[in-house]
Amino acid sequence: MKEVAVGIDIGGTFTKYGIVDKMGNCLIDGTISTTQEKELDQYLDLLKTTIDEAITIIKDPVQIKGLGIGAPNGNFYKGTIEYAPNLSWKGVVPFIEEFKKRYNLPMFLTNDANAAAIGEMVYGGAKHMKDFIIITLGTGLGSGLVVNGELVYGHDGFAGELGHLTIVKGGRMCASGRRGSLETYVSAPGIKRTVFELLADSLEDSEFRDVTFNQLTAKMISDAAKKGDKIAMEAFERTGRYLGEALADTVAHTSPEAIFLFGGLANAGNLIIEPTKRHMEMNLLKIFQNKVKILPSELTETNAAVMGASALVWKELEK
Amino acid sequence: MKEVAVGIDIGGTFTKYGIVDKMGNCLIDGTISTTQEKELDQYLDLLKTTIDEAITIIKDPVQIKGLGIGAPNGNFYKGTIEYAPNLSWKGVVPFIEEFKKRYNLPMFLTNDANAAAIGEMVYGGAKHMKDFIIITLGTGLGSGLVVNGELVYGHDGFAGELGHLTIVKGGRMCASGRRGSLETYVSAPGIKRTVFELLADSLEDSEFRDVTFNQLTAKMISDAAKKGDKIAMEAFERTGRYLGEALADTVAHTSPEAIFLFGGLANAGNLIIEPTKRHMEMNLLKIFQNKVKILPSELTETNAAVMGASALVWKELEK
Repeated sequence: MKEVAVGIDIGGTFTKYGIVDKMGNCLIDGTISTTQEKELDQYLDLLKTTIDEAITIIKDPVQIKGLGIGAPNGNFYKGTIEYAPNLSWKGVVPFIEEFKKRYNLPMFLTNDANAAAIGEMVYGGAKHMKDFIIITLGTGLGSGLVVNGELVYGHDGFAGELGHLTIVKGGRMCASGRRGSLETYVSAPGIKRTVFELLADSLEDSEFRDVTFNQLTAKMISDAAKKGDKIAMEAFERTGRYLGEALADTVAHTSPEAIFLFGGLANAGNLIIEPTKRHMEMNLLKIFQNKVKILPSELTETNAAVMGASALVWKELEK
Repeated sequence: MKEVAVGIDIGGTFTKYGIVDKMGNCLIDGTISTTQEKELDQYLDLLKTTIDEAITIIKDPVQIKGLGIGAPNGNFYKGTIEYAPNLSWKGVVPFIEEFKKRYNLPMFLTNDANAAAIGEMVYGGAKHMKDFIIITLGTGLGSGLVVNGELVYGHDGFAGELGHLTIVKGGRMCASGRRGSLETYVSAPGIKRTVFELLADSLEDSEFRDVTFNQLTAKMISDAAKKGDKIAMEAFERTGRYLGEALADTVAHTSPEAIFLFGGLANAGNLIIEPTKRHMEMNLLKIFQNKVKILPSELTETNAAVMGASALVWKELEK
C-alpha cells in the first residue's frame, strides 16, 4: 500500500489539501471554503469528509502516515492556531486536539511560512542545504528559518517573524499596532505604499498618476517596471533596498547558505532579486560578503503550502 | 583515571587555559602570553609545554578527552582563526591542523562568544534551556545563539555576529569599515562614545566634564550612574535602548527563552538590564511580549571563556 501524507494549507478564504507521496507526487488535491462553516467542529467535519472522499478517488489504495497543517499563527509545539487575524476562529484554537478526534494519526501544525521552508527543504531548492531562510512575500512578509537542518521554532513556537523587524523607526503603520515593520515596506501592499510615496515625492510621470490606491496591484507595478515606468522601477529599487538591508542583519544572526524568495512579489524575478542582493552585500560584514545566495523559490505558488505541510509529516516522522 | 577537557581561551594579549572535569571543576589553570612567540609554531610549542607541565601538578592522574579552543574569529567547521584583527597571526590560520601535530586528540575551536554560550549551557544559567542567546559586552559586542539545543554556526561557521547589526543608518564609524553597528553603541567603547555625545549635546553638569576620552572607562560610567550623575545615567538609558531595540529584532528571528548579558558592561546589573528589557518589550510583536528573560550570565568573567571552551569538548563528544 502506498504511503502518503495529507498536506493542508489553511488560508483566510480557502483551505487547500493534497494527498502527497514521499517523492512529492500529489495524487489528488482540492479546496474547501474556510469560512463556509463558522464553528471549528463543523469545519473539521467538512474537512475530514472531503479528504476521505478524495482518497476513495485515488486509483491505488493508500495508507495515510500523517497529516501536516500550515496555518497563519500556527504553533508547532502546542498544535494551536493563536489569534490569527484573518481567520474567524478567535483566540487560541486547539486545532490538533480537535482534529485528532477525527484522525487518530500523527499530526503536525506550523505556520504557513515554516511549512514553505520545509517544502523547500524536502522538495525544492534547499534539498542539500542545512542553513537557509525562506521569505514569503504576499499580503505580508512571512519567513521560515532553518538552522543545522532543523526549522527554528524558538522556545514558544513563534520564531521567524522577520516581517516584524523594525526597519524604520517611527515608520509606516503596521496592522500589529507597531510602526516601521519590514512587511509594511516589503510585501504586495508595501510596494504599493512605496509607489504612492514616490508619486507624492517626485515629479516623474508615471502610468500610476491615473490609478487609485485601491486599484493598484503589485502585478501592475512589476508590469510597469518592465516597460520602463520610472516610478515603478524606483519602487522595486527601494523595496530591494529595504529587504537587502534587513537581510544583512539576518545574515549576521544565522549566516545562511541561501535566502529563497517566494510568492507574488518574488515572481518579479530580478526586479526584486537584483536590488535585494546588491543592498544586502553593501551592508554585510566582510566575512559574509559574496557567500549568501538570493534565489527564487523552486516551489510553485499553487501548491507550495500544501506540499510544505505534507513534507512536515515526513520530516517529523523521520525523527 | 579522571576524565578532563582542556579549555583554552586565546585573547589578543593573554592565552588562558584550564584543565576542567565534566562537573565543571577546574583542576588547574594558568596563563601564557599570546604575543611572546610571534610564530604560530613556537606559540603552540609553548602552549603544549605549559599544559603538559600543569597536568603533572594535578594530584590524581587525569586523562585528557579533548581540547576546546575559543578564539576571536574562530571557525568551528574549519578549525581556523580567520583575519582576527587583534592577533599577530595574519590571514587564515590553520590552528587545529597545527595543534593536532602536538595533541592527537579530539579538538574543537569556535569564537569566544560561542564558547561562552556553550559554557552558559553546560555550567551556567542556561542549563535547562534549548533556545537562548548570550551577548558578551567588552571591547566589542559578541554573541552566541543557541537554537534547538545546538549552537548556531551557520553554513560557514560565522553566524552570531550581532555586534554588526546596523542599528543607525549612517551612524557611528566601526572598525569593520561600516557605520552604525550595534557594537559602536553597545560595548565599553560604545557607552564612552555615548557619554561624549551627551556631553556635547546637553548642558547638564557631570563629573565627566573634567575627564578626557582616553581617561574614561565603562567602570567609571557605572560608578557615576550609581551616584546619580545625570549624564552617566542617561548614557545607560540610551545604551539599553539601543540594545533593547536590537534584541526585539533578534527575538523576531529565533524567539529565545532568555538572553544572557555577559562581561564588563553587564556587571552594571540593572543599570543596563532594566532599560534593555523595557525597550525590548516596547518593540516586540505582541506574541513575544513578557516572555523573554534578560538575565545576567552565571559565568564568572575570570574563567567563562576557558570553561566554555572546555564545555565545547564535552558537548561535541556527546554527539
